[in-house]
Amino acid sequence: MTALPFPRRELPTPALIVDRAALERNIAAMAGFAAARGIALRPHAKTHKSGEIARRQIAAGAVGSCCAKLSEAEALAGDGVGDIHLTSPVVTEEAVGRLARLGARIALSVVVDHPDNVARLAAMGEPLTVFIDVDPGNRRTGVASVEAAVALADAVAATAKLRLGGVQYYCGSQQHIGSFAERHAVIAAKTEYLRAVLAALKAAGHKVPVVTGGGTGSFAIDAELGVLTELQVGSYIFMDREYRDCEFAASVGFEAALMVDATVVSANAAGLVTIDAGLKAFAADAGVPVVLTGVAGESRYAFMGDEHGAIFAETLPGLAARVTLMPPHCDPTVNLYDRYFVVEGETVVDIWPVTARGCST
Amino acid sequence: MTALPFPRRELPTPALIVDRAALERNIAAMAGFAAARGIALRPHAKTHKSGEIARRQIAAGAVGSCCAKLSEAEALAGDGVGDIHLTSPVVTEEAVGRLARLGARIALSVVVDHPDNVARLAAMGEPLTVFIDVDPGNRRTGVASVEAAVALADAVAATAKLRLGGVQYYCGSQQHIGSFAERHAVIAAKTEYLRAVLAALKAAGHKVPVVTGGGTGSFAIDAELGVLTELQVGSYIFMDREYRDCEFAASVGFEAALMVDATVVSANAAGLVTIDAGLKAFAADAGVPVVLTGVAGESRYAFMGDEHGAIFAETLPGLAARVTLMPPHCDPTVNLYDRYFVVEGETVVDIWPVTARGCST
Repeated sequence: MTALPFPRRELPTPALIVDRAALERNIAAMAGFAAARGIALRPHAKTHKSGEIARRQIAAGAVGSCCAKLSEAEALAGDGVGDIHLTSPVVTEEAVGRLARLGARIALSVVVDHPDNVARLAAMGEPLTVFIDVDPGNRRTGVASVEAAVALADAVAATAKLRLGGVQYYCGSQQHIGSFAERHAVIAAKTEYLRAVLAALKAAGHKVPVVTGGGTGSFAIDAELGVLTELQVGSYIFMDREYRDCEFAASVGFEAALMVDATVVSANAAGLVTIDAGLKAFAADAGVPVVLTGVAGESRYAFMGDEHGAIFAETLPGLAARVTLMPPHCDPTVNLYDRYFVVEGETVVDIWPVTARGCST
Repeated sequence: MTALPFPRRELPTPALIVDRAALERNIAAMAGFAAARGIALRPHAKTHKSGEIARRQIAAGAVGSCCAKLSEAEALAGDGVGDIHLTSPVVTEEAVGRLARLGARIALSVVVDHPDNVARLAAMGEPLTVFIDVDPGNRRTGVASVEAAVALADAVAATAKLRLGGVQYYCGSQQHIGSFAERHAVIAAKTEYLRAVLAALKAAGHKVPVVTGGGTGSFAIDAELGVLTELQVGSYIFMDREYRDCEFAASVGFEAALMVDATVVSANAAGLVTIDAGLKAFAADAGVPVVLTGVAGESRYAFMGDEHGAIFAETLPGLAARVTLMPPHCDPTVNLYDRYFVVEGETVVDIWPVTARGCST
C-alpha cells in the first residue's frame, strides 16, 4: 500500500470502507441526543471492534464502551479504551482469571445471570462490578424472573468483593421491528416488566445505580420511557441495510457510514455482471447488500458463492469497474475484515485496524 | 496460551478445531482416489486458506493448489506453496502488477474469460500461463459460448507472452445436488458441453494440456466421465453439514475434520441453553451447525444473534460446559477465524494460522 493519502480507486477489493464525515456526524448526533435527554451513552463496540472509533465516541461524551466478549475488551483496552462493560456472562475458570487481570488495568464491569457464575467470580478474590442481566423474554441471556433477579442480587451482596453496578436489560430481537409505532408498543410493554424488576430489587434493599440497555432501534423509545439510565447503542455508528429498512423517530437521523468497495471481475452474461464480493465479504444472515454507487439506475445484488456476487441491472458496469455496496448487517460484516479504509470521497485518508476482530471468549 | 500440547478444555471459545487424524485420512483418501484413476489433484485452498494444509496435500501427491484470489495466493506462496492456479479472473491494473511479481516467484496460472483481460495480462510483458474459464451455464465467471472460448484462445495465442495452459470448467451450484444419481445426470449433461468446447478448440488448432475443475460433490463423477484431467476439490478436506447431507459414491468417504468448540454461557431458560457461538462463529449462508458432542440425545442449534446460539435438547448441558459443533459451510466459517487448534482427541497438539484469512483481491 502506498503512503496516505491515496486514491480509493487503487484499493484491492473487496475493501471495507468508512466515510469519515458520515461517521463523525453519526457520533455527534447520538452524543447530542443523549446529552439533551440526560441519559448516559455507552456505545457497543461489538459493532465496530475498533479502538479508533471507541475513543472517538468517548471523546464525544460517551462514558465508556460495551464489549460482547472478553477478548474484545482485552483488545480495546490495549488500544486505549479505559472503561468497559461486558454484556455477556464470562463463565469459565480460564476466562475469569483473565477477567481479573483486565479488571486490575481498567474500569470494568460484567453481567451475571446465574448463581454459579457469581460464586466463581467471587472466588477469584478481586473486586469487580457486576450487573444483573435481566432477560426481557428473549431466552438468550439473563435471569428469567423477578425472583431470580432479587436472589442473584442477594448472592452478589453476600460476597466480599463483588459490587452491584446495576441492571442490564437488552431487547435484542425487538430492535428490528420495522414499524416505529409497533416497536414503541413492544418496548413499552417490555419496560413495564423492567420496572417490576427494579421495584423488587429496591424493596429487597438493593441499590441499582445504572440501568443499561437499548439499541439503535429502541434508543429514542428508551429515552422517552425514562427507565434506562444508559444506552448501549451500537449500529448507529455505521447503519446498515437492515436498520435502513426500519422506521425511525424524526428527532435524530443517522447516515450510511460503512461500505464495501468491490470490482467487476466477469462481464459475459446477459443482464448481470459478477463482482468479487460474496459470502466472505458480506455476512449473509440478514439478506443482501444494496448497491450504493457504480451502477446506473435500478440494480439488485445476489450472492454467488464464497467469493462472488451478481449485480443485475439494465445498464451494467464494465469489466474492472468499481461498485460500492451497503452491507445488510454491519456487525458480522465488519468481523470479516482486518482493517477499515477511511475515506473522504474518493481519497483514502486513514487506515484503522479492526482491533478486536476474531472469535474467542 | 500455554506451551503445546495442552488440554483442549483450556481453549477460549469459540475455537476452530481440526481433528488431525481425520484430516490426514481425508488427504490420503482423495490422493488415493486420484492416483488410482490417473487424474491429477490440485485441491482448492479457498477452503482452508492454510499453508500447513496445502503443503500436506502436495506432499501426499497433489500437483499444487488452487486459490480463489491473488491475496490468498500471495499468502500461501509466502508459506511455502510453490505451484498455484488462480480460479477467478484478476482484472485490475493494480492486481495484474502484483500477479506479475508473484509469477516471477512461483509456478502460477490464472483464468481468463474476457478479451480485455487478455489484453491487460499481455500488456504486463511477463510470461504467464492462462486457462480459458468456461461457464457451464451458471453465469458466474467464464466465457458464455463455444465461439467465445475459441475467440479467447485465439486472442491468447496472438500474444507474445501468454501461454494457454488449458481450460477450467467448474459446475459450482451443481456440487450440492443431494441425490447422487441426479447429480450424476446433471454433471454428465454439463460435460457434453465441455466436450464440444474442447473439440472446437482442437479444431481451431489449440492444444489444451489440462482440463481443470470439479469439486467435492462431483469428483467421482468427473473421474468416471474422463474429461477433466485435474480435480479442484476443496471441501473434502474438512467436510461440513452441507456436504454431509449429500449422497456420495460408495468408493470413497470423508470424515468430519473441522469443528467449533463452544461454551454454555447462560442456562436459565426451559428447554435450551445459550452458547458463545453465533453469527461471528459460523457462516450463516447454509443453515445451522450440528451438535457433535457435549449434549446427550437429540439436539438442535439455532442462531441467537452475533455472539450467541441456542442449543435445544431434553437433557441440557450445564453452565460453562463444552459443546462441539460441525459448521454448516466450511469455507466461509474458516474465514472467520485466525487459527486452527489441531487436536488429537482432547489434547491440542498444534496451532496453525489461517494463513490467507482476509478479503482483498
